[in-house]
Amino acid sequence: MNLIEKLIGNFSRLPGVGKKSASRIVYYLLKTDQAYIQNLSKDLTELKRRISNCTKCGNYTETQPCGICSNHSREHTTLCVVEEPKDVLSIESINQYKGLYHVLMGVISPIDGVGPKDLRISSLLSRIHSEGIREIILATNPTLEGDTTALYIIDLLKKETDVSIARLALGLPVGGDLEYADKLTLARAFAGRNIV
Amino acid sequence: MNLIEKLIGNFSRLPGVGKKSASRIVYYLLKTDQAYIQNLSKDLTELKRRISNCTKCGNYTETQPCGICSNHSREHTTLCVVEEPKDVLSIESINQYKGLYHVLMGVISPIDGVGPKDLRISSLLSRIHSEGIREIILATNPTLEGDTTALYIIDLLKKETDVSIARLALGLPVGGDLEYADKLTLARAFAGRNIV
Repeated sequence: MNLIEKLIGNFSRLPGVGKKSASRIVYYLLKTDQAYIQNLSKDLTELKRRISNCTKCGNYTETQPCGICSNHSREHTTLCVVEEPKDVLSIESINQYKGLYHVLMGVISPIDGVGPKDLRISSLLSRIHSEGIREIILATNPTLEGDTTALYIIDLLKKETDVSIARLALGLPVGGDLEYADKLTLARAFAGRNIV
Repeated sequence: MNLIEKLIGNFSRLPGVGKKSASRIVYYLLKTDQAYIQNLSKDLTELKRRISNCTKCGNYTETQPCGICSNHSREHTTLCVVEEPKDVLSIESINQYKGLYHVLMGVISPIDGVGPKDLRISSLLSRIHSEGIREIILATNPTLEGDTTALYIIDLLKKETDVSIARLALGLPVGGDLEYADKLTLARAFAGRNIV
């Protein structure tokens, strides 16, 4: 197998990149400047060496603790609980939430053999106690596993702590169309309707 | 800017990869095995060093001449003329064409300042004479620039050589739907109809 075929194969392993996109990428690289490729290659090698998980919140970071945990202008009494580090990026992108995060590193999923002990739930509990957390916002995904995980955590926190607990609103996506909304989403949008 | 943001920025420069896909890719890489990343990084660095254009046909290759030009079981009297090296990959994937290629390295495009002299047209002419080529298949894209280039080459070859010249068939794409075909395609499909 030649180098072009090998690179196409390797690129097509990436999420959202099929064989066609992978070959477009490789042919693009063959035409682009070498500096860009060198840069990409160097950053790739350094990625795993320089990035680790924040010992407090679990998010990916180059410093310990991460930039969010060590930012004194953020509210240190609120934690937003998410499944994965990438969810932190999504929530940060809306520029609205000013508290800290806690990354679970997965969801409860019996089918994949993932139970509560495999997630960062005990460290969530100890942070609530040691850091004087007053509010928890559960931002797991609105999926079967995400909901199961959220319900498990709600149950646990109600027993062991007295923090206030909130969950993200469910409803129609902005710019969406009633016609294309699935029945469950429409039902949640009705149930959560706001009086105006 | 941190390393993750930098990599996301660099990946989103690739064709077909937007900012969202780029961040999915980087978060995927953070979870994947280091061996895969090292491999990808190494191949990227070597790409431009190891790959050059075949001195005969112009296709990307690691050897001189390329595997297709040096393959004695292929028909050395037929040339398929394409715009870009990636077009060779597309045609090879159908496993039907057994001749050689000639890559023009672009198309005539006055708007981008590309004229016939900027393409590998004179080397096409000299190959036809020196290699005893008997058939030319023009496989430029069915676009304004591709058609202009094909017509220019047809004109030139008719004057300077006596090779037989063919162009790819135009018509409905297989699996396509009359309803969604544009008028030009439908018109070409009618004009090129086959008696059965």
